[in-house]
Amino acid sequence: MTLVKVQGIVQLYREKPQVKITRIRNVSNEDGVSLTDFIRAAPIGSAELLEVIYRVIESISDPVIRDIVSFCVDKVSEKLAHYPAAKMHHHAYFAGLAYHIVRMLEIGEFLCKQRAFLKEDMIKAGIILHDIAKPEEMIAQLGVVTDYSVQGKLIGHIAMAAGWITEVALRLELPLDSQQVIGLQHLILSHHNLGEWGSPVQPQTAEAVALHHIDALDAKLQMAEDALNATSDKELWTQPVRGLENKALYRMSL
Amino acid sequence: MTLVKVQGIVQLYREKPQVKITRIRNVSNEDGVSLTDFIRAAPIGSAELLEVIYRVIESISDPVIRDIVSFCVDKVSEKLAHYPAAKMHHHAYFAGLAYHIVRMLEIGEFLCKQRAFLKEDMIKAGIILHDIAKPEEMIAQLGVVTDYSVQGKLIGHIAMAAGWITEVALRLELPLDSQQVIGLQHLILSHHNLGEWGSPVQPQTAEAVALHHIDALDAKLQMAEDALNATSDKELWTQPVRGLENKALYRMSL
Amino acid sequence: MTLVKVQGIVQLYREKPQVKITRIRNVSNEDGVSLTDFIRAAPIGSAELLEVIYRVIESISDPVIRDIVSFCVDKVSEKLAHYPAAKMHHHAYFAGLAYHIVRMLEIGEFLCKQRAFLKEDMIKAGIILHDIAKPEEMIAQLGVVTDYSVQGKLIGHIAMAAGWITEVALRLELPLDSQQVIGLQHLILSHHNLGEWGSPVQPQTAEAVALHHIDALDAKLQMAEDALNATSDKELWTQPVRGLENKALYRMSL
Amino acid sequence: MTLVKVQGIVQLYREKPQVKITRIRNVSNEDGVSLTDFIRAAPIGSAELLEVIYRVIESISDPVIRDIVSFCVDKVSEKLAHYPAAKMHHHAYFAGLAYHIVRMLEIGEFLCKQRAFLKEDMIKAGIILHDIAKPEEMIAQLGVVTDYSVQGKLIGHIAMAAGWITEVALRLELPLDSQQVIGLQHLILSHHNLGEWGSPVQPQTAEAVALHHIDALDAKLQMAEDALNATSDKELWTQPVRGLENKALYRMSL
Amino acid sequence: MTLVKVQGIVQLYREKPQVKITRIRNVSNEDGVSLTDFIRAAPIGSAELLEVIYRVIESISDPVIRDIVSFCVDKVSEKLAHYPAAKMHHHAYFAGLAYHIVRMLEIGEFLCKQRAFLKEDMIKAGIILHDIAKPEEMIAQLGVVTDYSVQGKLIGHIAMAAGWITEVALRLELPLDSQQVIGLQHLILSHHNLGEWGSPVQPQTAEAVALHHIDALDAKLQMAEDALNATSDKELWTQPVRGLENKALYRMSL
Amino acid sequence: MTLVKVQGIVQLYREKPQVKITRIRNVSNEDGVSLTDFIRAAPIGSAELLEVIYRVIESISDPVIRDIVSFCVDKVSEKLAHYPAAKMHHHAYFAGLAYHIVRMLEIGEFLCKQRAFLKEDMIKAGIILHDIAKPEEMIAQLGVVTDYSVQGKLIGHIAMAAGWITEVALRLELPLDSQQVIGLQHLILSHHNLGEWGSPVQPQTAEAVALHHIDALDAKLQMAEDALNATSDKELWTQPVRGLENKALYRMSL
Repeated sequence: MTLVKVQGIVQLYREKPQVKITRIRNVSNEDGVSLTDFIRAAPIGSAELLEVIYRVIESISDPVIRDIVSFCVDKVSEKLAHYPAAKMHHHAYFAGLAYHIVRMLEIGEFLCKQRAFLKEDMIKAGIILHDIAKPEEMIAQLGVVTDYSVQGKLIGHIAMAAGWITEVALRLELPLDSQQVIGLQHLILSHHNLGEWGSPVQPQTAEAVALHHIDALDAKLQMAEDALNATSDKELWTQPVRGLENKALYRMSL
Repeated sequence: MTLVKVQGIVQLYREKPQVKITRIRNVSNEDGVSLTDFIRAAPIGSAELLEVIYRVIESISDPVIRDIVSFCVDKVSEKLAHYPAAKMHHHAYFAGLAYHIVRMLEIGEFLCKQRAFLKEDMIKAGIILHDIAKPEEMIAQLGVVTDYSVQGKLIGHIAMAAGWITEVALRLELPLDSQQVIGLQHLILSHHNLGEWGSPVQPQTAEAVALHHIDALDAKLQMAEDALNATSDKELWTQPVRGLENKALYRMSL
Repeated sequence: MTLVKVQGIVQLYREKPQVKITRIRNVSNEDGVSLTDFIRAAPIGSAELLEVIYRVIESISDPVIRDIVSFCVDKVSEKLAHYPAAKMHHHAYFAGLAYHIVRMLEIGEFLCKQRAFLKEDMIKAGIILHDIAKPEEMIAQLGVVTDYSVQGKLIGHIAMAAGWITEVALRLELPLDSQQVIGLQHLILSHHNLGEWGSPVQPQTAEAVALHHIDALDAKLQMAEDALNATSDKELWTQPVRGLENKALYRMSL
Repeated sequence: MTLVKVQGIVQLYREKPQVKITRIRNVSNEDGVSLTDFIRAAPIGSAELLEVIYRVIESISDPVIRDIVSFCVDKVSEKLAHYPAAKMHHHAYFAGLAYHIVRMLEIGEFLCKQRAFLKEDMIKAGIILHDIAKPEEMIAQLGVVTDYSVQGKLIGHIAMAAGWITEVALRLELPLDSQQVIGLQHLILSHHNLGEWGSPVQPQTAEAVALHHIDALDAKLQMAEDALNATSDKELWTQPVRGLENKALYRMSL
Repeated sequence: MTLVKVQGIVQLYREKPQVKITRIRNVSNEDGVSLTDFIRAAPIGSAELLEVIYRVIESISDPVIRDIVSFCVDKVSEKLAHYPAAKMHHHAYFAGLAYHIVRMLEIGEFLCKQRAFLKEDMIKAGIILHDIAKPEEMIAQLGVVTDYSVQGKLIGHIAMAAGWITEVALRLELPLDSQQVIGLQHLILSHHNLGEWGSPVQPQTAEAVALHHIDALDAKLQMAEDALNATSDKELWTQPVRGLENKALYRMSL
Repeated sequence: MTLVKVQGIVQLYREKPQVKITRIRNVSNEDGVSLTDFIRAAPIGSAELLEVIYRVIESISDPVIRDIVSFCVDKVSEKLAHYPAAKMHHHAYFAGLAYHIVRMLEIGEFLCKQRAFLKEDMIKAGIILHDIAKPEEMIAQLGVVTDYSVQGKLIGHIAMAAGWITEVALRLELPLDSQQVIGLQHLILSHHNLGEWGSPVQPQTAEAVALHHIDALDAKLQMAEDALNATSDKELWTQPVRGLENKALYRMSL
């Protein structure tokens, strides 16, 4: 995938405009443009996002948890640089998933400072892993999901990610019933909170409770921010936002 | 766990009967009694049930599917000889799980004959595997579930069994994205049909559709049969049955 | 309604193809074609289906039950030869209702062998009667439902069929509170299982529990089979199937 | 069932009071007491209630509708003199059903005057018939329901009453598809409004819409009135009322 | 807004008809037409409707209640002369809201006569106030709602009207915790009955229970009447009515 | 309410222990005990909590918003020093409400730093006001709710607090349709998010979306923390927590 520079003439064909291309070449550095100038993208560059994620992984104290997280992130590291977090619901743009993770990590860091009883390693790991199989669940290009993979439909990203924990445990010869393995699988499996939202078990550790609400908070606030950004300053109301009870948002003038 | 023969005298203590034991010894063969004379148990002996299950496993044509099923059954073979299928819902007695599997296999065999488009290997495997992690999800003795295990609560038998497929695939070096691995995981993950009933994905193969309905048919009919058996012939109505919309059943006199 | 043979010339009119008919005549035997060559139809001929149904009626031991079933079937015998089982949901084609009944009878026969406590007469009768008023509820031609009748909308096929039992009981001077009359009405009234699915009472006999699940099993498997048949072998996924939680089905390559 | 006059001495037995009867005789006219002095009963005597109902039946213009209503009321006329309208929900006392009907008839009469487009015969008939099978659905004495009949459980009062219309139509040789027969069956079948509330079809005539809301209005207001009457004037709040979203009612001091 | 008389010629433009206006002038008295000849309107003139409402306000005995009602009606008196009661649901035409209030007042008057325990002042006031903020919630012209106001969306007519009671209490120096203020606010807040229908509290006075059901009865019957009126006499079925479970209504021929 | 020091002898009465008091006096400073030693209380003293709240109020830039918040807090300032946030759900202890507000303010402050598009004044005000009427909705002593007030039941704390905004606006002569008044009322009215959870309108400003999720996050995490604190370190599982889908929490050993 690459950017091209095109020169052409616009003509009318059967009453619709049509571009007749006269010259075409690949974009060069001198053009000073990049892919994210032309598509919706996270407000932070993906290199920077990945750097934050890797730095947080390094900061995990428990070596077993750190290894598990590293293994799973490595599986999708290339796609993590550009995949959206969802098809339409939220963060549906270039590097949306990485941006979602980084913002959640900031909230998680704050909450662990605010409430000492939360286990920070589990919060960090849970945030990085909760949607880690989404790049294998969805098929996306330029931040746009075009379809779901066969595994994505038949297994789903939640059970896929839980399976990756099993895989890494076996490869690294970690006991499948260790607190780390069970604890991380529980975080992934329960993070949608309810069965009707896709979680086969409900949150049963403090960190699982936290993870679900950090996820919801970040996703909903991002939907609000993106809807307002997508609306002209002169408009008082955004378009209806599906993930916000299908309500339009009002732009207050304070 | 063993049976003992007790001799004693019944006395009243604080207006309640009390047995004062005078002699006690282990049961011997001459006593001609067995454990299932004293507890609720499946109507077929557990040895016979396991034999059927193993015979069906042998009959699976696809060697990969056969290996996966064998591996999972071996994990719980000892418990499969006596575990119930659930705490209260259905088949809640000694060897209830094995009995549930065997009856479902009979229905599955019939349906595959009736409808050639169903893949028989998948139906057999799905039936044997759908609840295969229940003995690790629950803690039971003598057919009575006393509690759930930590893994049972945090992971749940559905995700546990899906993880076992991942495990066997890695141990046997099967591709994790092979049709057999994905297909069997899908059968397990979807067999509760809806998210609110515990399935993170919904049935999306013909065999998954069949598995859910074979499971429901067998469980509901067994609840009906057990409720009627637990009711004196003179009673027209059974107790209310929770799994049957909490309705009592009427015994017709035809 | 009849088949005709047409000869004509295809022309373009306002950019759309149009057939200009030059000759037309009724189909004769020599043409070797029949109606079901041109419309969606059950895979078994309707004569054969009706024969099976009548044979099962004959096999009902209890003469009262047999008479009730005969009376109801006679009411719609002509339409039973070609009516679909539903407008869109399942078996929505020529002779779909008779085909649905015959397949359910096969499952019922198997289950009665498997579980002796089920009353076979009631299972047979319940299967034949459960949708017996549908040909009066719907208006169909060539296997396609075009509308619902006034009675179909205001009374519904469930209460209509229950009324037919009242009618035959009065005509044959059977007591309205006999086990046969009450039992069969209960089977019909409860076979949708829940109030929100149209049943004013919930299953409260073992046979009513069985009937609902036999109905669901056959309808869902047929939806799956029909969806796969309607999809080219080269396609991995069918169209979404409304009755299967609106999910598309995956064609496994095993 | 009869009233007796008892004379006795109250003694303590195992710390609980006990009456030792010394004299007992049937109540005589001179005692000046009647059954409804001792049990919860409708505020209007049952003779008067029945008289109103019969007078309204006489006032129905359409002879076919009048005959159908008469036939159904005659089936339960004796029980209608004392049956409650429900086990607990509303009008759960002596002659509660007749009282419910009479009050609804008053509302119906008012509405037909207010809105000329409503067909008064259908409104009158629908009100009298909507719960007419309840005395055969429930087993009651002295205004207290002790159980449901077998038919009450397996068929339910809604389908039972619809069946009675079929019965009278056959006995009086009325066409089963006449507007009167279909119209009245629709009123009965749809009067609970939704499937989950027990109606197999939803209201589809103006009179059916009216019947449901007249029924709800009368039942809810009676619950409110009965709850306030059952509460001491000094209490600001009644007990929670199940049928009113389980809310207690506040007694305003205006 | 005014009516004009237009004279013109109909021509075809790009195959669609077009009116070329040749003369245009304001309507004069001699034309003998009025606005409601051309738009959907309540069957009673708005002057007459307002007169009834003001007369009922005068008849309220409690001066505090009367003052509160007057204050609120004065806030919207001009709009009350022509506003509809809803965008689409019911009474969606010129003066629909006033017509809805008047019809409910008739029902309320009847019920207070039928059941002496209901406090008539509260019933009258509750009926007049229950939707009184709708003209500020919606933006309407000629009986057609084109949008909702900012306050309408962010506060909603229920909380707006409750706020008006607070406002009048403060302006008239009535205690905010008086029975009249609390009682009327409760009537407004609870009249949608359930949280999912928009009421933050559920009915907890007899009058609140009555108000909800009077509202429902009038709205549903009006939907039925309007649907039948909008359907040609030759048609047996109306269009589906959204507020009546999306069912079409059948026109009986009795 | 005061603490007393008691001296006595424990005796058995009817097999139950009983304290026979021999001396009793008020607690003096030398005893070195305070009320919160004996009851469940927030981990931070109420004086300190109130100080934080008042400091945040001072920091609000918009003078109108600041005045509105001050007015509402002044209404309940005494009760805010000790009231719980709910009867059972969460923060059900001495000064629980003030503690809930303070923790939410910390989260709010963090989020406003993280996302510049959020209006900090509205976030601060919304957090302080969202439950501000709870001390008038509930009747509590020593951190335990014993009942709800009449206004609490009939109006509810959400509509009560919205009414307080109307009140302050009128007293301070602020326009009732100003952005501050409407915006704050919207925050209060929508903060339960859904109608079935008590909100008559759904969040329609970014700050309202944020407020709901900050509230949920703090309440759920506090439930988790309190449940773990109330469980002995030796126990792996807490009691089931109603607000966490009635699940017990697992104490991980990492």
